[in-house]
Amino acid sequence: MTEARFTLLAADGAARLGRIDTPRGEIRTPAFMPVGTAATVKAMRPESVRETGADILLGNTYHLMLRPGAERVARMGGLHRFMNWDRPILTDSGGFQVMSLAGLRKLDEEGVRFKSHIDGSEHHLTPERSMEIQRLLGSDIVMSFDECTPFPAEEGEAAASMRLSMRWARRSRDAFGDRPGHMLFGIQQGSVFHDQRAESAAALRDIGFDGYAVGGLAVGEGQEAMFDVLDYAPGMLPEDRPRYLMGVGKPDDIVGAVERGIDMYDCVLPSRSGRTGQALTRRGAVNIKNARHQDDPRPLDEECGCPACRSYSRAYLHHVFKAGEIISSMLLTWHNLHYYQELMQGLREAIGAGRLAAFVAAFHARRAEGDIEPL
Amino acid sequence: MTEARFTLLAADGAARLGRIDTPRGEIRTPAFMPVGTAATVKAMRPESVRETGADILLGNTYHLMLRPGAERVARMGGLHRFMNWDRPILTDSGGFQVMSLAGLRKLDEEGVRFKSHIDGSEHHLTPERSMEIQRLLGSDIVMSFDECTPFPAEEGEAAASMRLSMRWARRSRDAFGDRPGHMLFGIQQGSVFHDQRAESAAALRDIGFDGYAVGGLAVGEGQEAMFDVLDYAPGMLPEDRPRYLMGVGKPDDIVGAVERGIDMYDCVLPSRSGRTGQALTRRGAVNIKNARHQDDPRPLDEECGCPACRSYSRAYLHHVFKAGEIISSMLLTWHNLHYYQELMQGLREAIGAGRLAAFVAAFHARRAEGDIEPL
Repeated sequence: MTEARFTLLAADGAARLGRIDTPRGEIRTPAFMPVGTAATVKAMRPESVRETGADILLGNTYHLMLRPGAERVARMGGLHRFMNWDRPILTDSGGFQVMSLAGLRKLDEEGVRFKSHIDGSEHHLTPERSMEIQRLLGSDIVMSFDECTPFPAEEGEAAASMRLSMRWARRSRDAFGDRPGHMLFGIQQGSVFHDQRAESAAALRDIGFDGYAVGGLAVGEGQEAMFDVLDYAPGMLPEDRPRYLMGVGKPDDIVGAVERGIDMYDCVLPSRSGRTGQALTRRGAVNIKNARHQDDPRPLDEECGCPACRSYSRAYLHHVFKAGEIISSMLLTWHNLHYYQELMQGLREAIGAGRLAAFVAAFHARRAEGDIEPL
Repeated sequence: MTEARFTLLAADGAARLGRIDTPRGEIRTPAFMPVGTAATVKAMRPESVRETGADILLGNTYHLMLRPGAERVARMGGLHRFMNWDRPILTDSGGFQVMSLAGLRKLDEEGVRFKSHIDGSEHHLTPERSMEIQRLLGSDIVMSFDECTPFPAEEGEAAASMRLSMRWARRSRDAFGDRPGHMLFGIQQGSVFHDQRAESAAALRDIGFDGYAVGGLAVGEGQEAMFDVLDYAPGMLPEDRPRYLMGVGKPDDIVGAVERGIDMYDCVLPSRSGRTGQALTRRGAVNIKNARHQDDPRPLDEECGCPACRSYSRAYLHHVFKAGEIISSMLLTWHNLHYYQELMQGLREAIGAGRLAAFVAAFHARRAEGDIEPL
């Protein structure tokens, strides 16, 4: 098989069950992609990431181009081989991280000039260079280079930003060329403005992509405003292509976005929380550093089958977190990623069975119960 | 089986091949015990430690009594269950770490008073309390409470220290009582003085222990002075009991000590080095942070079967170390512990086959070749 393609398997309301087939393996959607910023999902071996149920990882173009460098990764056989993950990888375009370098970057029609946060070296990121870097990395799903419109933005400001992104989307498409087995995704912008979202979607459809991201969300607008946009924006994109909501999110963000027709997600939350002592469970977040766990022999979540919950007490997890032990990050990250993948599996099964509403009701009811009682 | 016992299987010169049977499993000797100071071998899951070939771990009484506390560990079902390691555990007596708290501790005939380095709380460690803590932890091999004589020590100073340790050894034996399936080890002191080593060995034999440690070495005297003591000290101890050299050591220290009749070892070197970017290989130490590795597609050691060597290039290991990624500690620690266990397995096989001299010659020849050539 040399082609990559999306198959829509079932729908339940706006929610979709699907599958992306790629030469490197299948991606079951709705899919959550753990973030492997610098060629590692922090505190996890890739074999362990796979054990949680992940079909695909996300790599960050910005970080990898600066260190170890895209050309170096290419000489080492590409990102998959470099980081020991042979399944699909999606890379972002680098745009989002570069734009957030306030004061250190300069944007014009051509692209963005910026200085590395690591060594101060100067770089020029353009749609063409972003496509080249993602090709050097060997990414299976390549993202167009865009400007993530800041929030809040005036209507005129947002429109100008969106139109720049659409011109860059065209240049990305042209630079990407024809690469069987690899997909290029376009990114819809338009902030919280319906007409701009429609204009952006039309521009992207006109260019033609293998998948479409809803961009410019999860940038501070809040869940309500995000869901307002997701009530209409996904429906503007081609039904027969996967839809990706970048940088989302908390479990309830994902559940709400799945209900609104989004197929793919990525977020640092489960891995970052794992390193700061926060466990994400079906009953909400548990702060393991809290002293109430220090004598608790129970697992984080008695219904969870991850290694942290199967083999360790809250007392142990509390102890190793307080002692600053690396295994704390290892176990909590594993738990959090396991929980996310289990949630995605639950969503997929519910959509397939046409009982998503009941699944979502149960999801919210369980969280409303709160964490388990103290001993 | 409720008894723990040592069986001598073969000898080659002074070197011994043996086996300690305990209710929690067999310990093949010569044995290297990875150090799990605070109820974790840093950066490793216990399943992974076992995969390296470790039969037994070491836990530190001093650290565990302060955090999370021996009584708490006991309430959680003991150290094995707490840290998810069901095989044998040896605990030290706490004495060594307490003695190194210069200025913060006060020693008398009764024991040592000291303040916690974590919260400043006051503690009193005595032979009786050390035995109680090690019982609460559930240790399989318990060490007598002793004073590790500093180096260098005047002859009179060393003798006084050794005799205090012998009185504490008697109190440790009395306090330990009769615990089928658990072993109590005595610790020989006497610094670098032959007569004192003999006096100490006689005192310990008179009390009677399940095993004997050669204490007071690896404290700054250097390998030559250590080997000088090991040329005679192990032979003063009962032949039918295991002999343990505490806190040793570098690979060539271990090889030399095995040749001199030592059966058990522990050291933080492989795990600590793993976290500071130093890989220990059959060709010597490799500093992965060195820029010469940044484009090297080869593994750390092409003959090594550990996950770091099987799946990652030096370029990757260099990258993740420089980026401060946790997986760097995870992979290098795994490699180092794997190398140590492979070395022990090689030593055991060589002794069993009566070809230790050839094995040791090959060990030194390989190291003399140095690390692999730069690309």
